[in-house]
Amino acid sequence: MKTPEQFVQSLRELNPIVYLKGEKIKSVADEPMLAPGVNAISLTYEYSQNAEYKDIMVATSHITEKTVSRLLHINTNTEDLLKKLEMTRLLCRTTGCAQRYLCHDALNALYENTHLVDSNTDSSYHTKFLDYLEYLQDEDLTTCVAMTDAKGDRTKRPHEQSNPDLYLRIVKKNKKGITVRGIKAIVTGAPYTHEIIVLPCRTMTEKDSDYAVSFAVPIDTKGVEMVSREAGRPQQSSAELSSKYGQATAQILFDDVFVPWERVFLAGEYEYAGLLTESFATHHRVSCIGARAGLGDMLIGASTTMAESNGLNPNKVGHIRQSITELIKYVESFYACGVTSSVFGKETPAGNFSPDPVYANIGKLLQGTHIYDMYKVAHEVSGGILVASPSPEDMEIPHIGKKLSSYLTANDSIPSEKRLKMARLLEDITASYQGGWYSIIGIHGGGSPEAQRIEMMRKYDFDERKSLAAKITGLNS
Amino acid sequence: MKTPEQFVQSLRELNPIVYLKGEKIKSVADEPMLAPGVNAISLTYEYSQNAEYKDIMVATSHITEKTVSRLLHINTNTEDLLKKLEMTRLLCRTTGCAQRYLCHDALNALYENTHLVDSNTDSSYHTKFLDYLEYLQDEDLTTCVAMTDAKGDRTKRPHEQSNPDLYLRIVKKNKKGITVRGIKAIVTGAPYTHEIIVLPCRTMTEKDSDYAVSFAVPIDTKGVEMVSREAGRPQQSSAELSSKYGQATAQILFDDVFVPWERVFLAGEYEYAGLLTESFATHHRVSCIGARAGLGDMLIGASTTMAESNGLNPNKVGHIRQSITELIKYVESFYACGVTSSVFGKETPAGNFSPDPVYANIGKLLQGTHIYDMYKVAHEVSGGILVASPSPEDMEIPHIGKKLSSYLTANDSIPSEKRLKMARLLEDITASYQGGWYSIIGIHGGGSPEAQRIEMMRKYDFDERKSLAAKITGLNS
Amino acid sequence: MKTPEQFVQSLRELNPIVYLKGEKIKSVADEPMLAPGVNAISLTYEYSQNAEYKDIMVATSHITEKTVSRLLHINTNTEDLLKKLEMTRLLCRTTGCAQRYLCHDALNALYENTHLVDSNTDSSYHTKFLDYLEYLQDEDLTTCVAMTDAKGDRTKRPHEQSNPDLYLRIVKKNKKGITVRGIKAIVTGAPYTHEIIVLPCRTMTEKDSDYAVSFAVPIDTKGVEMVSREAGRPQQSSAELSSKYGQATAQILFDDVFVPWERVFLAGEYEYAGLLTESFATHHRVSCIGARAGLGDMLIGASTTMAESNGLNPNKVGHIRQSITELIKYVESFYACGVTSSVFGKETPAGNFSPDPVYANIGKLLQGTHIYDMYKVAHEVSGGILVASPSPEDMEIPHIGKKLSSYLTANDSIPSEKRLKMARLLEDITASYQGGWYSIIGIHGGGSPEAQRIEMMRKYDFDERKSLAAKITGLNS
Amino acid sequence: MKTPEQFVQSLRELNPIVYLKGEKIKSVADEPMLAPGVNAISLTYEYSQNAEYKDIMVATSHITEKTVSRLLHINTNTEDLLKKLEMTRLLCRTTGCAQRYLCHDALNALYENTHLVDSNTDSSYHTKFLDYLEYLQDEDLTTCVAMTDAKGDRTKRPHEQSNPDLYLRIVKKNKKGITVRGIKAIVTGAPYTHEIIVLPCRTMTEKDSDYAVSFAVPIDTKGVEMVSREAGRPQQSSAELSSKYGQATAQILFDDVFVPWERVFLAGEYEYAGLLTESFATHHRVSCIGARAGLGDMLIGASTTMAESNGLNPNKVGHIRQSITELIKYVESFYACGVTSSVFGKETPAGNFSPDPVYANIGKLLQGTHIYDMYKVAHEVSGGILVASPSPEDMEIPHIGKKLSSYLTANDSIPSEKRLKMARLLEDITASYQGGWYSIIGIHGGGSPEAQRIEMMRKYDFDERKSLAAKITGLNS
Repeated sequence: MKTPEQFVQSLRELNPIVYLKGEKIKSVADEPMLAPGVNAISLTYEYSQNAEYKDIMVATSHITEKTVSRLLHINTNTEDLLKKLEMTRLLCRTTGCAQRYLCHDALNALYENTHLVDSNTDSSYHTKFLDYLEYLQDEDLTTCVAMTDAKGDRTKRPHEQSNPDLYLRIVKKNKKGITVRGIKAIVTGAPYTHEIIVLPCRTMTEKDSDYAVSFAVPIDTKGVEMVSREAGRPQQSSAELSSKYGQATAQILFDDVFVPWERVFLAGEYEYAGLLTESFATHHRVSCIGARAGLGDMLIGASTTMAESNGLNPNKVGHIRQSITELIKYVESFYACGVTSSVFGKETPAGNFSPDPVYANIGKLLQGTHIYDMYKVAHEVSGGILVASPSPEDMEIPHIGKKLSSYLTANDSIPSEKRLKMARLLEDITASYQGGWYSIIGIHGGGSPEAQRIEMMRKYDFDERKSLAAKITGLNS
Repeated sequence: MKTPEQFVQSLRELNPIVYLKGEKIKSVADEPMLAPGVNAISLTYEYSQNAEYKDIMVATSHITEKTVSRLLHINTNTEDLLKKLEMTRLLCRTTGCAQRYLCHDALNALYENTHLVDSNTDSSYHTKFLDYLEYLQDEDLTTCVAMTDAKGDRTKRPHEQSNPDLYLRIVKKNKKGITVRGIKAIVTGAPYTHEIIVLPCRTMTEKDSDYAVSFAVPIDTKGVEMVSREAGRPQQSSAELSSKYGQATAQILFDDVFVPWERVFLAGEYEYAGLLTESFATHHRVSCIGARAGLGDMLIGASTTMAESNGLNPNKVGHIRQSITELIKYVESFYACGVTSSVFGKETPAGNFSPDPVYANIGKLLQGTHIYDMYKVAHEVSGGILVASPSPEDMEIPHIGKKLSSYLTANDSIPSEKRLKMARLLEDITASYQGGWYSIIGIHGGGSPEAQRIEMMRKYDFDERKSLAAKITGLNS
Repeated sequence: MKTPEQFVQSLRELNPIVYLKGEKIKSVADEPMLAPGVNAISLTYEYSQNAEYKDIMVATSHITEKTVSRLLHINTNTEDLLKKLEMTRLLCRTTGCAQRYLCHDALNALYENTHLVDSNTDSSYHTKFLDYLEYLQDEDLTTCVAMTDAKGDRTKRPHEQSNPDLYLRIVKKNKKGITVRGIKAIVTGAPYTHEIIVLPCRTMTEKDSDYAVSFAVPIDTKGVEMVSREAGRPQQSSAELSSKYGQATAQILFDDVFVPWERVFLAGEYEYAGLLTESFATHHRVSCIGARAGLGDMLIGASTTMAESNGLNPNKVGHIRQSITELIKYVESFYACGVTSSVFGKETPAGNFSPDPVYANIGKLLQGTHIYDMYKVAHEVSGGILVASPSPEDMEIPHIGKKLSSYLTANDSIPSEKRLKMARLLEDITASYQGGWYSIIGIHGGGSPEAQRIEMMRKYDFDERKSLAAKITGLNS
Repeated sequence: MKTPEQFVQSLRELNPIVYLKGEKIKSVADEPMLAPGVNAISLTYEYSQNAEYKDIMVATSHITEKTVSRLLHINTNTEDLLKKLEMTRLLCRTTGCAQRYLCHDALNALYENTHLVDSNTDSSYHTKFLDYLEYLQDEDLTTCVAMTDAKGDRTKRPHEQSNPDLYLRIVKKNKKGITVRGIKAIVTGAPYTHEIIVLPCRTMTEKDSDYAVSFAVPIDTKGVEMVSREAGRPQQSSAELSSKYGQATAQILFDDVFVPWERVFLAGEYEYAGLLTESFATHHRVSCIGARAGLGDMLIGASTTMAESNGLNPNKVGHIRQSITELIKYVESFYACGVTSSVFGKETPAGNFSPDPVYANIGKLLQGTHIYDMYKVAHEVSGGILVASPSPEDMEIPHIGKKLSSYLTANDSIPSEKRLKMARLLEDITASYQGGWYSIIGIHGGGSPEAQRIEMMRKYDFDERKSLAAKITGLNS
């Protein structure tokens, strides 16, 4: 497995075309605007080398028996599912969002789906996919996952859109491969990964066949261009977390990109597009739960410290206790759904394990909608200082800094420096560009609340409960 | 193990003093006002005989190696914890509340606590308790659990109250045993059980030593009198569930009741009173989760059927889907906390397993506060017919019944009889005396929301999160 | 205006056909099962005679200049709207639900709608309606309002139902009048009123013309039969409120009932059916707000007393303060919407005043969905005693009553009798048949939450806000 | 009254000491980092000149009979209260937060409080205050309001703090005036105003007398220094609102500042400190309601446009309708509390009118806690594009901009430019530094939720409701 340094070096060997605020980036590995993102991925490499986290960060590949990053591992039992959840929380409680777990979720979904398509058709996607998987594991690579299409009019299917390119599609097929065109509109972490895995983002009908496509290409493949945002809040002195760790969101344009058959995992089998989407969503929603639980850990720690810095003991002051327990309740109840989803996971026909979809969706729904309540508690408990704390630069004006240090001490056992750092950390993660990113990705990443509701309706066993109600009243069913 | 018939017969052999609406009851086993309660306990005996439920309803006693009811079993691993949770849901989804799980929770708490007291003092409660446990297991008995004292002024400790009897207390000790006086104010299912297990209901200080008492006595012990409410809604024609299965709540008066030392499990060791309360609470809060998940199953089944009876397909009608998924979210998210609490359970020094307290408390808090939201969804989805459906007696007036049958058919594939039965079932469990009982027991049974918040504050690992936040900002801690 | 005694006597002079639990009632005025309902209406007559409430309870008829009950008054300015709201709160804080305000709301809606229909067609409904109004005002009568049809399949219009009678309809028209058939399925207070006002319950299309019908008939008109529930919880010793004041809900069957043209206010003008429904709904939703604010007053008073009875000062104990302020917030915020709706009321083309529909709908939506939260607070604050308090009959057993009185005193300055009465009052209004009624009528009376959402979408000025957003970004609109 | 240009020019004539990110500002009127703040205040001058808004923006001074800005007006009836609320909404729906209404609230509070102190002591604050008021009205000045002290340990009173300067205090008094020292920690809009009005921020005891101080000084008084943040998001191309209009928050240091008696409005009369705080809070909480209702208008307009841009008609798509009506419900229900508070306002002994405090506090509580829910709806309805939309600079890269314009069109009748602008506007006001500012000022500006709960407990008429509950159960009280 790669060291963090090797990871960064390997990025330098790639030449993706990335635009950011109107400028073309020279080297993603060395671009300050992307550094927090590179750091976040690097941490996954660092932790894999760390003995303390070994049990959780690495696994034994079921295809090669080699030790591989769990982020590239296929789950072989419910314990794997639980460890993946715990790993996600571990990585995200330091980085805010580690991004690389997307890769795990896509690989598991493709593992299941390629097996399924091959079982029902004369395709041979699964074997090709296994080769690709082995390659990723052996090289310890990172992929981004490009799923969300432009989508156009949300009430229309891909083939019904007025512009045929609003969902990424196959424009040509030949013996060597396929050519694709379109855009993937929200791709987390894209610029600083090695490979792009493309997945479809919805169910499709026969007329949508050209849109039923999944494949992988290197990040610097011909015809691929990205427009990215900065990762986190680079070079901002008060960004306690996000000047160090952050996430870039990019739009990836595919301008008639050629993909050889060895890297194509779905190409026209429209019946399986929705299943692949759903399969990815199930794995990924559990990851989202773990990720935001890590953010929750930060919020709980910082909010509690902040209350204490204000002289308010959360154990004694009623409304602080109420607020803090609300915060814990939000975080740990959606995490509990992730745990239950993992523990109740089931083996798929392909032989890997998939989380229970009902609990995965409930947990994601809770996570996505309660992130706003989590911010509310953090703000309520901390006070208005979150938007009024002086900047690090102001604190360095000698006569000002000295006075403010004195005035801003509220609990004699906690220095004002610590109070200010906690205020800045909380502002950073709840009331800045970064905080906004977490909330929007929190509610829409891994699918919108409505997507989760629809999936819950599909997967919940209503018949069993309806029979129960009928039986109670003496009816047969 | 007893059959249901043997259970009822065994009740006839006891002579507890029970008042109900001003009248003294002759035979609890044959009293119509208590019949739904007797039925609910009987079902636990019936299911224990049922091969289908065997895995979940019975266990192998770790003290005698005999097959015993899981309701009398000491948990020996996390799997036991999970099965107990599942058993509770299973029993309550048919009875509304099976009551007898209280017994399990008290036994496990006493198992831990007697062991702990003995480890730290020269007492020998644990051995005596094991004898009692074996007796209960061998005879397959049912106990009620008498915990909640009158409590008086909630801001004062037991010894500070103006009336010394507001918490049950030891008024005499001699070589043979102790004599106790006081009242236990909310005892579920009391009249139709064999034994009363008494537990303290709070932490105590040295001056409260006389109140630090736990013991067991047969239900018809001299000096014990009860004032009970009816169980469910007996003999009410429209009570679809609660004319069959219900719960009585009683107040038990202890008028200088003598308890021999063999049945005394705490008598003055005030430091352990709160621990015993807490230990019971941890086990019991998980049971409450399972119980109300069972009620949730009924609500989900009946509400969905009701919506369909009104011609509204929950998959297609947006606001019905939103409501139904809310309902599922409430039920399954608190259940997930129960699952997680069980899976993350830990071995105690006594050797049994106790659920994780943080998740147990979060799950109970969610359950207790969301039961009102669950009712809201059931009502919103079902419509005003819940309080306007005609009574069974009205339907028997020929010319009226015929017309109403016709008018009240809303979906041609669901007969109006079924629609009416679902309406009555939902009224019964959400908008009647029974519905009120479930909500109040839902929020206060197993401790109030504030009790859960306090316990969450005690058990959550804040230090770990505070260190994390400090580390992110570059501080040592 | 009538005295309460004259009102009851006037009921004796009518002979409606009413069934209740399978029995035909002899005299609604003297039927114990209906007494709490009769009492609730009587109170409206009593308060109208009371000098203290004069300003609020009576008004000067704008058609006759006579002093009339405000419950029969047409609003001539926004002050009238505000007083009607206050009157509703006043009446309902003592009776739970005074029922008779339905009458006011129907009269105002018919006033507007008959005027509108006449303005656009050659009909003369308004004149006939004015005669009827004068009759009601002069005789000081009470009407029930029969609106909700059986409705059948909720996704289909009246004429699309498989059974043509699922909405009440005109089966015959001749020179003298119309003949109607069908059922009105949820009619509050029906048995003990003088007249039935029938309104349509939805928008209609041309094919639904036969269903576009509104009229008034005396309660004992030939062909009218009712199936009623009891009013409140008559003769139940622990029903602190609802043994005195309550509400019956009835289904009214119209078996080819003839209505003379003088009492017909809509007969086939389908375009106006929905407008009449909407107009009634707007007036009525404000009444619902006032009614439930009255219930809120009871809850606030009883819950606060209950907390104090437990020794918990709501000003000092954090979680009690939090809960009580939540309760106040729910009640007064929906009431504020009622106030705003009244203050921002507008004159209609007919010359009367109608509340602002946006605030009326928001207030009703808040009221209907927060009633569950109101119960939660009442329960949380009061404790489990709500379902464990002994019955009045048990308290009369001398040796039991004496002991329980002593044990159940928690705050020395509040006698246990008062604590028990508060517990029973709260159980009565939140955790009994009566409590269930309030919650279901709370959410569905005056229309379901979804009905309010749809109405909000129709009436809110979105265009104005969309222009604003466009302007901010520099676009024209 | 001043024109906007005169306002800006008048700022140039002052020389306040302001630090921003470590740099001393040369001219606040010309500093780009403060321009959005200056613009927001300027708009209040512009609208006062605008005939369309005349009725709402100006008033007749009750002391001079001159036409003055309503922002400097003393309310003389409930209509004034209502117009002030409407003015606040009007100004903030364009600027986000107009800031200058703080001035109005402080003036009304001082009007009441100086009158009260003079009535009860031999002071003559009111006359001096009237002079100051006339000066402000005549010159049409803007003041900031400096209220929040450093506060130190929140559980301790001012005189109990380990550092005596944690609340601003009088360090010297002589015949000419007082000398004050300390910091006011969160002052909105401070740098670009003419005057600072200082108010105390809590109740005080005799030992806190030195802290019971209120006064006014010009912004560039000797000894006054500020540390400010930038106003809005100046010079950021994607900041659709906040590059134009924004708010700076500053900390104001008072280093032994001399204030002549003519400008002192409280100096030691500790009993009145809390009343002044409370009086300001009551006026100001209603302003906060109006301000955030203006923000709500933006959110409703932009969210609805965004949904439509995505092809989703809010009237037809169930979950969008549900979300949008939630958003309206939040905004209009807290606004309704503001309206009711205004309509139910009362004359004070000083002769001006003050809003009803119960509804003012409920409205502010709803506003402060629901702002998070408002963001949730805006995000849920709009989709993930909020954090993935390309920057204006990226759109200017020809080959990229052209493709993205095409891909990002979702509804053919709404150009992608508009969709992008709406996405950026929503990101700006809900998911950026500016969005964070609104949420934190939303919850803490005008006092924290706990402050509102405490005030509700103080002002609500509990006795009346407790009597009601007692009477229902037949008790005297």
